[in-house]
Amino acid sequence: MTTNNQYWDESSEAISRSDLEALQLDRLKLTLQHASLSHFYKKKFSEEGVDISSIKSVRDIRKLPFTTKQDLRDEYPYGFLCVPKERLVRLHVSSGTTGQATAIFYTRADLETWADLLARCMYMAGARPGDTFQNLTGYGLFTGGLGFHYGAERLGMLTIPAGAGNSKRQIQLMKDFSTNVIHIIPSYALLLMPIMSEMGIDPRRDLKLRIACVGAEPYSEEVRRRIEDFYGIRVYNSYGLSEMNGPGVAFECPHQSGMHIWEDAYLVEVIHPKTLEPVPDGEYGELVLTTLKREGMPVIRYRTKDLTRIIPGECECGRVHKRLDRMQGRSDDMFILKGVNIFPVQVEQVLMNIPEVGNNYVIVLRQENNIDNMIVRVEVNDKIFVEDMRQLQRIQKKITHDLKGELLVTPQVELVEPNSLPRAEGKAVRLIDERKF
Amino acid sequence: MTTNNQYWDESSEAISRSDLEALQLDRLKLTLQHASLSHFYKKKFSEEGVDISSIKSVRDIRKLPFTTKQDLRDEYPYGFLCVPKERLVRLHVSSGTTGQATAIFYTRADLETWADLLARCMYMAGARPGDTFQNLTGYGLFTGGLGFHYGAERLGMLTIPAGAGNSKRQIQLMKDFSTNVIHIIPSYALLLMPIMSEMGIDPRRDLKLRIACVGAEPYSEEVRRRIEDFYGIRVYNSYGLSEMNGPGVAFECPHQSGMHIWEDAYLVEVIHPKTLEPVPDGEYGELVLTTLKREGMPVIRYRTKDLTRIIPGECECGRVHKRLDRMQGRSDDMFILKGVNIFPVQVEQVLMNIPEVGNNYVIVLRQENNIDNMIVRVEVNDKIFVEDMRQLQRIQKKITHDLKGELLVTPQVELVEPNSLPRAEGKAVRLIDERKF
Ligand SMILES: [Zn+2]
Ligand SMILES: [Zn+2]
Repeated sequence: MTTNNQYWDESSEAISRSDLEALQLDRLKLTLQHASLSHFYKKKFSEEGVDISSIKSVRDIRKLPFTTKQDLRDEYPYGFLCVPKERLVRLHVSSGTTGQATAIFYTRADLETWADLLARCMYMAGARPGDTFQNLTGYGLFTGGLGFHYGAERLGMLTIPAGAGNSKRQIQLMKDFSTNVIHIIPSYALLLMPIMSEMGIDPRRDLKLRIACVGAEPYSEEVRRRIEDFYGIRVYNSYGLSEMNGPGVAFECPHQSGMHIWEDAYLVEVIHPKTLEPVPDGEYGELVLTTLKREGMPVIRYRTKDLTRIIPGECECGRVHKRLDRMQGRSDDMFILKGVNIFPVQVEQVLMNIPEVGNNYVIVLRQENNIDNMIVRVEVNDKIFVEDMRQLQRIQKKITHDLKGELLVTPQVELVEPNSLPRAEGKAVRLIDERKF
Repeated sequence: MTTNNQYWDESSEAISRSDLEALQLDRLKLTLQHASLSHFYKKKFSEEGVDISSIKSVRDIRKLPFTTKQDLRDEYPYGFLCVPKERLVRLHVSSGTTGQATAIFYTRADLETWADLLARCMYMAGARPGDTFQNLTGYGLFTGGLGFHYGAERLGMLTIPAGAGNSKRQIQLMKDFSTNVIHIIPSYALLLMPIMSEMGIDPRRDLKLRIACVGAEPYSEEVRRRIEDFYGIRVYNSYGLSEMNGPGVAFECPHQSGMHIWEDAYLVEVIHPKTLEPVPDGEYGELVLTTLKREGMPVIRYRTKDLTRIIPGECECGRVHKRLDRMQGRSDDMFILKGVNIFPVQVEQVLMNIPEVGNNYVIVLRQENNIDNMIVRVEVNDKIFVEDMRQLQRIQKKITHDLKGELLVTPQVELVEPNSLPRAEGKAVRLIDERKF
């Protein structure tokens, strides 16, 4: 499949814009015909009077109705299915935090497509057959685990299905098998740092790590820089969601200037979350995706709730696939404090830019005397002498000042000792909202 | 691949004994040549003066040296490897309870062989393409999880990678997706029973379960019968170990009279654990296995420590592949009490034959005044009225009597209320040895 050293799939990656759009149109039409076999789209298309034959260009997708998470919930389990159940070989379920589960189905061809997209992502970042890949995320129903696992095997890496947790063994495996590529969530990459130091392991000296694939939770550029510095690696951002297979939707190239979204497999739109109208490239809005190569379960104009923008201009790598900017968070993650919209990742950006700040923090929202307060509890780094009150006051003042500058509200900043905040081996809990509504 | 309704792989399953032995001899010779490329066997064969050309029949395997778990530990990580590292795509590691890890490597061809063997096992038990398969075991480095997962997808079942734990969701998934085939460890199958009852789910009425694939821990025929009765299914015993890929080494056919070991892939011997000489079919001894189709890492005459026997005679299903009896336990599991050798599974056999006994128990060994005592703590079932002292005394007496008859030592039996003993969502802890040695 590899015809030169740059591309995993040259025909898809080195395609011209016009060829890509022609391909998209063909696949969109097929997708719509196929989707109309499902209970949900059959009904939806008929109710909304959708005429597939009126789709003459990819821009005509705007004539089609949106699909939401709630639709997926309402149609659980089989309402989106477009093939006989006998043709399915995989099912992922997300239970969601809000009750009713959603189900995602895969045919054998879907698993092939998905694995191939992930191989393409990692190959683009520099992973090669013969590398050792260690998967430090959970397996099971979470699509990130099996998604990267299949992609790594397809690429031809020696794949270690380490799973989540068991930190000392993780580090030992990296050492014993000269792991080159890892898949890890950012908060776990931070958590491993002090454990490596305790074990006397200097990753730059003792390990062969080159590449980290990182996704699954919003995190800031500053945390990326900290991870890259500590491990001596390049960290590549990954974007995906189970409704679109899982990871493998968009990934960074070596220029690390946004995530190329694989437009041969997904049709991308960014809309204004209120007006639902498209916003121009460069402007932030809600990401909307349509599957172009899904057999078991096509999804049309899916409102991801993820807030991002298309980065305008061309990438130096030459790929025409548009680039998504770092996710600002999900519209669900945003909280409102004293009338101001705030994303937790904004707090992180500020904190991680301050060298005296350690790797862990938590935001607590609390109502006192009918006034909402934001408490930001921050670990200082292990070079700070915690008995030096004057220094601590100076750091506290600096953090408060910088946060106010970014958020326009004044938080109450509490400094705590290094490694004293609770740590999760899974996704980090960054926000605790104790307010009553 | 399926040419009729009975076999997944007719050429391997419906083979005659003489063709099978000819195939084994060919593969054994290839395996030995290939193995001698590894650091370990190169040295071993040279030290022991092994002459591969002297192997004229499969019985000549007795001229070859054994391989032990300790050899795998000593040669960690790459001493058994027979191919360039670049050809590997998977690695499983078992940390073992006793320190130094062991590593098992797989090429792409090895993963194919392994998945195909598991598909063959499940197909033999009655699983068919289009069935829904729910994998209730952990994934990651444990070979049971990914092993069955790949086998189920290869067979063409809709595979739900549910993973371990999360019991209510497991049951909900079984219901929502009409799960037909499950892979589960026996103690978890017992643990789910009261939870189903709490949820108001009667598996015979509300679920579509037909087949459970069960392995990974020793358990008794009586527990199988309890699981079959409660769920209204057939339970098939599975045998495997990571040194031989993982599961898929031996599996029961619908006659449930021993596990057919796939002799086209594994050469089987049963030896006396002290003399190391072969024992005749029908006699118990230690199972010794040689891989015949392994590319990345052949293993010759591996001493599994598992105690079993070859069941003599022919199976009614017509397959010539020999049948292994239920594992009596690992030689490691055996404990000695007052000079008597006891396997925990012997205790289980006695307990589960007594209808008043519930589904959970634990054996505690304790030294008091220099005397070893065995305390057997047993849950009564939920039909027993726990205030009825006379009835409880009668049950206690009965258990003590039956255990003494089987074990020849008198245990101290303590009855406890249903669902009051600690439960693990992973492997059950059945033995607590508090003695000092
Ligand atoms: Zn690029
Ligand atoms: Zn049989």
